[in-house]
Parts: sequence; structure tokens; C-alpha cells
Amino acid sequence: MAVLNYLTTTHFDFGAIKLLAQEAARFGAKKPLIATDKGVRAAGLLDQVIAAVPEAKAWPVYDGTPGNPTEEAVEEALALYRSENCDGVICLGGGSSMDLGKAVALLAVSGEPLDRFDPLKGGGRFIKGLAPVICVPTTAGTGSEVSVGFVIILKDGRKVTFANPQIIPKAAICDPELTLGLPPLLTAATGMDAITHCIEAVLTPAINPPAEGVGLDGLWRGWRHIKRAVADGKDRDARWHMMMASTEGAMAFVKGLGAVHAMSHAVGRIKELKAHHGTLNAVCLPAVLRFNEGVCAEKYARLRQAMGLPDGADLAKAVEEMNRAIGLPNGLGAMGVTKEMIPGLIPYAMGDLSNLSNPRKATPEDYAALYAAAL
Amino acid sequence: MAVLNYLTTTHFDFGAIKLLAQEAARFGAKKPLIATDKGVRAAGLLDQVIAAVPEAKAWPVYDGTPGNPTEEAVEEALALYRSENCDGVICLGGGSSMDLGKAVALLAVSGEPLDRFDPLKGGGRFIKGLAPVICVPTTAGTGSEVSVGFVIILKDGRKVTFANPQIIPKAAICDPELTLGLPPLLTAATGMDAITHCIEAVLTPAINPPAEGVGLDGLWRGWRHIKRAVADGKDRDARWHMMMASTEGAMAFVKGLGAVHAMSHAVGRIKELKAHHGTLNAVCLPAVLRFNEGVCAEKYARLRQAMGLPDGADLAKAVEEMNRAIGLPNGLGAMGVTKEMIPGLIPYAMGDLSNLSNPRKATPEDYAALYAAAL
Repeated sequence: MAVLNYLTTTHFDFGAIKLLAQEAARFGAKKPLIATDKGVRAAGLLDQVIAAVPEAKAWPVYDGTPGNPTEEAVEEALALYRSENCDGVICLGGGSSMDLGKAVALLAVSGEPLDRFDPLKGGGRFIKGLAPVICVPTTAGTGSEVSVGFVIILKDGRKVTFANPQIIPKAAICDPELTLGLPPLLTAATGMDAITHCIEAVLTPAINPPAEGVGLDGLWRGWRHIKRAVADGKDRDARWHMMMASTEGAMAFVKGLGAVHAMSHAVGRIKELKAHHGTLNAVCLPAVLRFNEGVCAEKYARLRQAMGLPDGADLAKAVEEMNRAIGLPNGLGAMGVTKEMIPGLIPYAMGDLSNLSNPRKATPEDYAALYAAAL
Repeated sequence: MAVLNYLTTTHFDFGAIKLLAQEAARFGAKKPLIATDKGVRAAGLLDQVIAAVPEAKAWPVYDGTPGNPTEEAVEEALALYRSENCDGVICLGGGSSMDLGKAVALLAVSGEPLDRFDPLKGGGRFIKGLAPVICVPTTAGTGSEVSVGFVIILKDGRKVTFANPQIIPKAAICDPELTLGLPPLLTAATGMDAITHCIEAVLTPAINPPAEGVGLDGLWRGWRHIKRAVADGKDRDARWHMMMASTEGAMAFVKGLGAVHAMSHAVGRIKELKAHHGTLNAVCLPAVLRFNEGVCAEKYARLRQAMGLPDGADLAKAVEEMNRAIGLPNGLGAMGVTKEMIPGLIPYAMGDLSNLSNPRKATPEDYAALYAAAL
């Protein structure tokens, strides 16, 4: 088994889930809250964890995490955490469950309300600490198990990215076994989420070459294995590499993200659309790649190399072809976004944390054009 | 200025040295020992640091570090540390000063003798802690400022690698300004040290894709800039990238190293030769690249890509050409090693920690052939 000792100690391999109780104990969590969702439970993954880790049977479970987690759900889970006297959080699921669990761990120690921790308002100074968080991803895309942030839709309708080094989970257990049953469409969407993380992290101008190296490795791995993982969910080798690409994507985006995420978050906050974050990233990525081209020529050359594309290949076109090949929608229109919605999206994209780290400064007019192109 | 928050918080840029006192204070070091060597002092670098950091004027200085640091020198520095009631170590120099300083920090808290910490004898269990270590590299090659280890020649003649996650320095201050005066030959030798770290770390079979990504990025950077840094020591851009390649090389070799280092350490322990570690690595690298080829074909393809070489290019030949171009010796013979010495080197190479992580198992006969080829 690989043990990756970076900021999050990551146990990575088939069967790693067996280490969950031991890891919880290591951080003093005797009665952690399991933060998950109904889909994870219905897929039998909670049972799979309990079968491998008998201690988990006694741990309280919150399974009300919505697809795009909300402040209301965080409060509900926090109430359960408190009434059960929990002392840690096990996040079991995709990005939604992990983000919700991280928010619960923050509020459990640093206190409500959530929005005072908004990094755009200097919220880091209010963080007194977090309850110990151990993440167990069941998808390969978000990388939230090693990331500095979480994203929650607040009661006022904003979808806010909370990012701070203190939020990085103590430990992650990445067991690709838990992803073998993930259906093709979710495999494709979450896989493109990981690939988008790697690409946007490399392109963002912050100076952090080690993170760029990790992002390029994740891109190399993800791009080579995504079609195999989508075509055959039981392809253990492909599942291993997709999960690694996901973890690496989030290690890389300690550098920041870019306009793709600004666009996705603005759409993701519209609850009625129930739009999947990874799918949004996949369909917005080509337009942003065309927009950023020219300001980062050397980095584009390295992205092409990592993706095994010839010199000068059209990156945006390669992503469009990949999206088509793995069955993802061909644009935001197919996901319910209409031309009329665009003006309402722009202020949220402009106000998103990821907008600040896009390599090319984007104006409201640019976002209007980007949304139109991605439609 | 780039701040790289990995296991070692690394302040990286021209002028970063100004942060030294602040970083020392952050780890509670009010009177740290400066571990350095006479070459660093003679080059004016100690004065340069004191000019930028007035507090450093009051810190005791040990400048007796030999080219390949010995247990005797460690004890001498430790005696000064104790008599001056120091509370931390600032390592100022190349790999030798950094390794010596790390050893002093270990013994100051965990107690002598040094050899009980040998990782090949399970020595990690004796580590009770280290005094805070802040490294300030003045060469770009060793990467010891972020590495898990240090190498010391013990009184019994063995050159032992002490490696443990607890040894990773708390902070590093990487200021390429301090390398502008490094002469061409030392620039070449230390630069090839960094490049060897990146290559051996990628090739070693431990599973750690993020470390591999970092190593490939370091190789990409180092290979592109080493000739420029050697040709013009004042090329600030080349110096920046060489220092980053050095840091990345050591972040990568958390995975382990290989036969090049086993060979180099065995020669480096012969005090009369006064052989430079980086130069030894550079001249041993081609033979080991030929030896390992075939067991890691996919990794060789990635190394070629990082080095900008065409598909199928002869890696060993490329390194030989590079060594020639930057003025390094063409073999161990030119460094004083004779055919007759080879049998005496083999047991030390076989017993070296790095031998265990070479991708292809090497026998004593293999080392005989490797030394003969590198002669």
C-alpha cells in the first residue's frame, strides 16, 4: 500500500478502507460523525465500509448531504454531531459529502455562522481549529480529501469557496475499490473534474513548481485512463489511476483554480438545475482554454505533452472530443442553462474566488462571451 | 515571493534571506547555532547574511564543516551548541553544512551516539525530536533543505544515510542571490546532483506519483537551465530555476534513490579523495542509466520528455554529453579512483540505503561492472 506523507497522510490502495478505525483513533476520534449522502448509502458503500470496519457500526450517520451542499444541510449535520457528542468527522462520498463534512468540522470547533470564514473577507482569522477530518472518497474527481477548501451554498444564495490551510484533512483513505460501482456517466463527469483541476491549477499564475509537477502528473494519468474507466468500471487499474489523478488534482490546486471554476460555481448555485459540478467543469473547459491561450504558451506546451497530444494541438478541441467520447453533454444548454440566464450568472462568476487566479483577467463581458460559447 | 507550504515551509525568491530572523523566532530559536563551512565564510556569504539579518551577528558560528561531513565535526559543533546554550540550528551552505547541522539538531535533543539512529537498524525509534532546523542553501543541488535525511561519515569509516520524516527541516529559505557567486565547476557539479536526484527518485519503484511529478518538473527545469547557469553565474533566471530544481529533487527523493547514490556514497567515504558528491553522481549516472534501462521503459520515456529529448534517445549518452559540455570529469578515474579500489567499494555500495531502492536489483558483480564502466 502506498502511504503518501504530504500535508494529508494518504493511504492509497485497494483495501485501504480497513485502516479507517485506526486512523480515526490516531486523531482521537472515538465517536466520529459519518457525513455522507443517500446515494452513497443506496449504492451499498456505507454497508461496505461497516463490513470492513466493524467500529463504524456505532458511529452516527448523517446522510442528508444534497448534490450541491447547502448551509442548511451543514447545520442539520452539525446538530446531529452535537447531540451525539461526536469528536471527529468521517467524510464518506464524493465532493458534496466531503465538503459538507469539512464545514461541520470547522463549525464544531470554531463556531457559527459559516459565512464569517469567507476568505474573500479575511475569514481565516476566525478559524480556531477544526475537529479531526478523515476523508474517504467514493468518486475520483473532487480531490477534496486533500484539498484546502470546501464549497457551500449559503442561505443568501451565494456559492462560497472556503479555503484555508487549516482546512486540509488530517488523513485520507483512498480505496479505489469504493469506486468500482460508479456508473459510467458519473465516472466521466468526476474524472473530467479531476482533469480540469489539474489543468486550471497548472495554468494559474501562482509560483509553485512542485504543485505544477503534481498537476501535470495527474493530468498525464487522468487523460490516459478516463476512457478505460468509463468503458469498464471494473477496470481496477484505470480506477486506481483515476483516483490518483483526483488526489493529485487537488494537491495541485493549492495554487488556485481559474475561470472554469468561477463559471461552474455560478451555475452550480442554481438549485433547480441540480447541475453536476464535474460536468459543468467539463463543458466550460474548452471555452476557457480558448480564452486563456496566448497568455500561457509554454504551459500549454506542457499540457499537450502530458496529454500525449502533438505539438501545437488544439487543447480545447481535444477536450471537446473527450467529452463526446465519454458521453458528457456538449454544452451548458443541454444542462438546462438558457441564454436568458447568462446576465444573472456573471456577477457570481466575477465574485468567485477562482476568478482571481485565472491567468487572463476576465471582465463581465468576457464571462458573457465564455458562457455563450459554452452554451 | 513564493511560499511553498509542503512539509517544509519554503520561502523562495531573491531576497528571501531577509526572513531568516522571523523564521527562527517562529520556531522559538532565540540563539541558534549557524552551521557552515570555511568556504561559505570565505565567499562572503556569512557576511551577506549578517548584513541582511542583523540578529545573526549574535548567533554562534561553527564553520568547521568538512566537504564530506564527519561524526567528529558533528561532535565539535554539538559541543559549541551546548556551551553556547543554543536553541536551534541555522544551516548555511551546501549539502555538507546542512547535513552537519541536521545531525547536530538531532543529537542536541535525542542524544548521542549518532550511529544508533541508522535507519537500516531501525534507528528511527530512538528519535525523541530535533532542535528546530532552518536551512539556507548556498548551492543548488543537494536539496537537503527539504529532505528527510542527512549523510555523515561515521568514526568507523561508514558513510551512513540517516533518513526519517522527523528530520525534515521546519523551514527553508531559498534565496538564489546566495548562489550568484558560485563558480562554474561547483555550479555544474551541484546542478548535476539535483538532476540525479530527480532521475533516481522517479525511477525508484516506491509508489508515490506526486513525488514523481515533482521530480519530473525538477528535471525539466534543471536540464533546461544548467548550461546557462554554468556559462553565466549572474544569470538570475537560470539560478532561480536551478535552485528550484534542487528543492524539487529532494522533495522527490522522499521516494528513495538508487544505485548512483550507492556508488557515490561508497567513494565519498574515502576521505583522501575529497571527492565532490554531485560530481560523483554526475559521472556514475550514465552507467546506472544503462544498467536500469529495460526495467522501467515507461519511466524512461517520461524522463526523455522532461529533458526535451526525442523518443528513444539514449539517456546515458545525453548525460555524458551534458557532463562534457559543463566541464565535469569524464569518469571516476579522473577523480582519483583506481581499478584496484573497486573491490573495496563494493561492500559499501551494497550496504548503502540507496541500493535498496534501485529499480533493478544490483549484485556485487553488477557494482563491479558499474564501477568499471564509470571509471
